[in-house]
Amino acid sequence: MKDVNVGICGLGTVGGGTFNVLTRNAALIAGRAGCNIRIARVASRRNRDDLELGDIPFSTDIFDVVQDPDVDVVVELIGGYDTAKELVMSAIRHGKHVVTANKALIAVHGNEIFDAAEKAGVVVAYEAGVAGGIPVIKAVREGLAANRIDTVAGIINGTGNFILTEMRAGREFSEVLKEAQDLGYAEADPTFDVEGIDAAHKLTILASSGIGVPLQFEKAYTEGIAGVTPYDIAHAEQLGYRVKHLGIARRREEGIELRVHPTLVPKAHLIAQVDGVLNAVMVDGDAVGQTMYYGPGAGDEATASAVIADIVDVARAVATASDQRVPYLGFRPEAMEDLPVLSMEDIQSAYYLRIQALDRPGVLAKIASILSEHGINIESIMQKESEFKDGRIPVIILTHTVQERQMNLAIADMESLGDIDGKVIRIRAENFN
Amino acid sequence: MKDVNVGICGLGTVGGGTFNVLTRNAALIAGRAGCNIRIARVASRRNRDDLELGDIPFSTDIFDVVQDPDVDVVVELIGGYDTAKELVMSAIRHGKHVVTANKALIAVHGNEIFDAAEKAGVVVAYEAGVAGGIPVIKAVREGLAANRIDTVAGIINGTGNFILTEMRAGREFSEVLKEAQDLGYAEADPTFDVEGIDAAHKLTILASSGIGVPLQFEKAYTEGIAGVTPYDIAHAEQLGYRVKHLGIARRREEGIELRVHPTLVPKAHLIAQVDGVLNAVMVDGDAVGQTMYYGPGAGDEATASAVIADIVDVARAVATASDQRVPYLGFRPEAMEDLPVLSMEDIQSAYYLRIQALDRPGVLAKIASILSEHGINIESIMQKESEFKDGRIPVIILTHTVQERQMNLAIADMESLGDIDGKVIRIRAENFN
Ligand SMILES: NC(=O)c1ccc[n+]([C@@H]2O[C@H](COP(=O)([O-])OP(=O)(O)OC[C@H]3O[C@@H](n4cnc5c(N)ncnc54)[C@H](OP(=O)(O)O)[C@@H]3O)[C@@H](O)[C@H]2O)c1
Ligand SMILES: NC(=O)c1ccc[n+]([C@@H]2O[C@H](COP(=O)([O-])OP(=O)(O)OC[C@H]3O[C@@H](n4cnc5c(N)ncnc54)[C@H](OP(=O)(O)O)[C@@H]3O)[C@@H](O)[C@H]2O)c1
Repeated sequence: MKDVNVGICGLGTVGGGTFNVLTRNAALIAGRAGCNIRIARVASRRNRDDLELGDIPFSTDIFDVVQDPDVDVVVELIGGYDTAKELVMSAIRHGKHVVTANKALIAVHGNEIFDAAEKAGVVVAYEAGVAGGIPVIKAVREGLAANRIDTVAGIINGTGNFILTEMRAGREFSEVLKEAQDLGYAEADPTFDVEGIDAAHKLTILASSGIGVPLQFEKAYTEGIAGVTPYDIAHAEQLGYRVKHLGIARRREEGIELRVHPTLVPKAHLIAQVDGVLNAVMVDGDAVGQTMYYGPGAGDEATASAVIADIVDVARAVATASDQRVPYLGFRPEAMEDLPVLSMEDIQSAYYLRIQALDRPGVLAKIASILSEHGINIESIMQKESEFKDGRIPVIILTHTVQERQMNLAIADMESLGDIDGKVIRIRAENFN
Repeated sequence: MKDVNVGICGLGTVGGGTFNVLTRNAALIAGRAGCNIRIARVASRRNRDDLELGDIPFSTDIFDVVQDPDVDVVVELIGGYDTAKELVMSAIRHGKHVVTANKALIAVHGNEIFDAAEKAGVVVAYEAGVAGGIPVIKAVREGLAANRIDTVAGIINGTGNFILTEMRAGREFSEVLKEAQDLGYAEADPTFDVEGIDAAHKLTILASSGIGVPLQFEKAYTEGIAGVTPYDIAHAEQLGYRVKHLGIARRREEGIELRVHPTLVPKAHLIAQVDGVLNAVMVDGDAVGQTMYYGPGAGDEATASAVIADIVDVARAVATASDQRVPYLGFRPEAMEDLPVLSMEDIQSAYYLRIQALDRPGVLAKIASILSEHGINIESIMQKESEFKDGRIPVIILTHTVQERQMNLAIADMESLGDIDGKVIRIRAENFN
C-alpha cells in the first residue's frame, strides 16, 4: 500500500487532535483510504510533550515542512491570516497539496489561494474550517451537486450558540460570556465569536461552495449577539420563537443575501432545537428540499475528523486529473455566478420589534398605522403590562416578511413619535418554509 | 468539456425525477462536475408523456441500455431484486458503471455485486438507496473517514415515522396507515415499510459502510410498528420520551448489534424532534462525536438529488485509478471486520414496560423484586389509575440499560405471576449519550 506523507504545521488544539487521531486510527484510516497516511514531519513554535512523536522529525520553523521533499500534503493548523497565507502559498509553489482548518484565511484570501493552486495543479481542502467536524462542505460541494441551492443558513459559531442557549434561563449576556471563557469555549478576546466575524468567515465559504458565488467576506453583513437581552429572548419564546445567531446566505433573483445576525426561528423548526456549543447547517436545494447537518463545530478531535477526511480526499485526488477533481468552491471557476451581494436595505425578512410605548391612548393605533403605511403586515402583537410601573408599556410585534428598507423607514417614523421612549429594538426573524 | 453518457432504466418516481433534474439543472451540474452529464438513452416498461424526451432514444427493454455502446453509466431505477440484479450484473460485465437507488438489491446482493464490480474495475454507487436525498453514505464513507464509528442510528423509513408522528395525537395505527396510503406515502402493500424490512435494508448498508462489517441483511433483527399503541406513546411522552422506529447498528466488543424496532428516545434529543415523513441518521464517531444528517428520505426529486450526486462522483472516479477510489462499503474489502452480529438476547438496551397488574396488595413489590433478581435497575415507575375500572392497574416502568437476555427472563417471570393479566408490553429505549 502506497504512503501519503503529511506534514503538520501547528501543534495546538487541532494540530494535537489531528496527530492523535491519525496515530490512533492509522490502520482503520488506511482501510478506508487505500493508502497509509504517514506523518512525515511536524512543526510548531514549541513541542508538546503529551504527544508521542517517536522518531517523527520536529521543527520550530513551520517552513521546514514546506521544504521537506518527503512531504506530499502540508496541513496548516497555525491559524491567523498572514503567516498562514505565506505558508500555504509557499506550499503551493513547492507543488504540495494543502489541508487547512483556517476559515479566516480561506474567507479572506481564498480566491487568490485557489487560483494559485489551480495553476500549480495541487489541491487545497478546507472542510475543517466550516462547522468543525460536520462534513458540510462535502455535502454542499458533492452530496448536493445536482441542486440549485437557494438558502444556506446555520448556527456556525458554538460559543455564540452556547451563550444564547444559557440566556434562555434569564441570564445576562456578559455573565454567560464570562462562563464561556472559563469553560474554554470563548477566547480571551471573544470578538470574533460574539461579533459574528467567525460566523461570517464560515458563511462566506458556505455561500460560495453551496450557491456558487465568489468569496466576498468583506461584503457580508455582520451583527453580533451582545445586544440580545434575556427580556427579548423571553418574549420571542412566548411568540413561539427561539433566538439564534444565524449566518444566512440566500439567492434571490436580484442578488445574494449574505448576513450574520441574531434571528428568531420557529421553535418547531429543527434548527431551533440545536443547543449549547453544537453547530447545524441547513441547506435548501431545488431538487432535494431542506436538509440539515448537525454536530460539533469545534474541539480537538472533532475538528481533526474533518482535517483527516480532507487528507484522505487529497490522497485520492492526487491520482485524478486536475480538471476531474471536485472544484475548490464546488463549481468550476468559469461556472461561478457573480451575483451582486445585496445591501441590507434590500434583504427580505420578518421582524420582531419591541417598542417602549408611553401609556397614552391611541399609541397602538399610531404604531399599527405606521407599519401599514410602509406595507408591513403584522403576524402577532402583544401589549405587555409594564413591569416597571414607569408609565411605559412594551409593545411586542412580529411582522410578516418585508424589505428591510421599508422596516428602517417604519422604525424611523415610530421613533419620531412622541409616544415612544428610546429606540425600537429589532431582531430579524426567519420561518424557513 | 467531456460528455459522460448515462442511460436511465425505469421511468417511475425516481427515474422521472432524475430525468427532470438532469435536464433542468444541466448547466449547473456541468459547472460542478467539470463534464456534461448527457442522457444518452432511457428505457422503461412504458413511456411517460409528461417527460420531454426530445430525441433521446427510448426502449421498453431495459437491457437495451446495457447494450448501447454510447452509455457509460447505467442508472438502475426499476426496483426489485431479480431483474434489477440481472441488469446490474450485465452492466458490470459490459464494463459500465452503475448508479442505483435500490437498497433491497444492495442489502441482499451487494457483496456479490461489489465483488464483480471490483474485478471489472467499474464503480457501483448507491447513495439514493439510503435516506433518499440526504448524503449520508458520503458522510460515513468519506466525511467521517477518520473515525471508528461505534453507533449509527436512524429514522430511515418515512412512512413509519409519519405513522408514529400522527399516532401522538391519539390515533390508532390502522387508521393512520390508511391515511398514509391515501397520501401516497405508503404502498398498497405496506409490508416493507411497517414491518421494518425497508429500514433493515438501509441499516444493513449503513452498518457496512459506517462500521465496516460485511453486508448481512439476513441477520438483522426486524420488528415493525403495528404493535405500537397510542396508549404506550402517551405514557412514553409522560416519561419524557418519544417513540420512534429506529434502525440501530452498534459496535460492541463482542460483536455488532443490528436491529430495527420501535424505540423510546429522550424528547430532548434532536432525533426525537424529527417528525412526519422526514428521515434522520445519527452517527457517533470516536473522533467527531455525535453528528446527525436530516432531510427527505424519499420523493422524486429528493431521491434524484442523490442519484445525480452519484453520477457526478462516478464521472470523476472514471479518471481515477481503481485502487484510489472510495471503496464500495467505505473500507477496502480486506479491511472489513467480520464482527459477529449479536443475537437479540445479547444486545443491550433500556426498556419501557407496561404491565397489567391485578389490583391486589403487594403486586408492585413482586414486580420490583423480579426485576432486581435479574439485575435490572428501574429509572422510573408509574402506577396509573385503572381507566377501565376492571380491577387491572397499568404499571409503567422505564429501566436502565440491561442485556436483553435478562429482560426476557424477567418478563417470563412476571408473566407467570398470578397477579399479572396478559402479556407484558415491552418497547426498547435508547438514550444516545
Ligand atoms: N479549535 C477549534 O476547535 C477549531 C475548530 C475549527 C477550526 N479551527 C481553526 O484551526 C486553526 C488552529 O486552531 P487551534 O484552535 O488549534 O489554534 P491553537 O490551539 O492556537 O494552535 C495553533 C498552533 O500553531 C502554533 N503556531 C502559530 N503560529 C506559529 C508560527 N508562526 N510558527 C510556529 N508555530 C506557530 C501555535 O504555537 P504557540 O501556541 O506556541 O504560539 C499553536 O501550537 C485555526 O485556523 C482555527 O480557526 C479551530
Ligand atoms: N420512490 C422513492 O421515493 C424512492 C426513494 C429511495 C429509493 N427508491 C428506490 O428507487 C427504485 C425505484 O423506485 P420508484 O419509486 O421510482 O419505483 P416506480 O415508481 O415503481 O418506478 C419503477 C419504474 O421501472 C419500470 N420497470 C420496472 N421493472 C421493469 C422492467 N423489468 N422493464 C422495464 N421497466 C421496468 C416501471 O414501469 P411500470 O410502472 O410500467 O411497471 C416504473 O416505470 C426502487 O429501488 C426504490 O426502492 C425510491
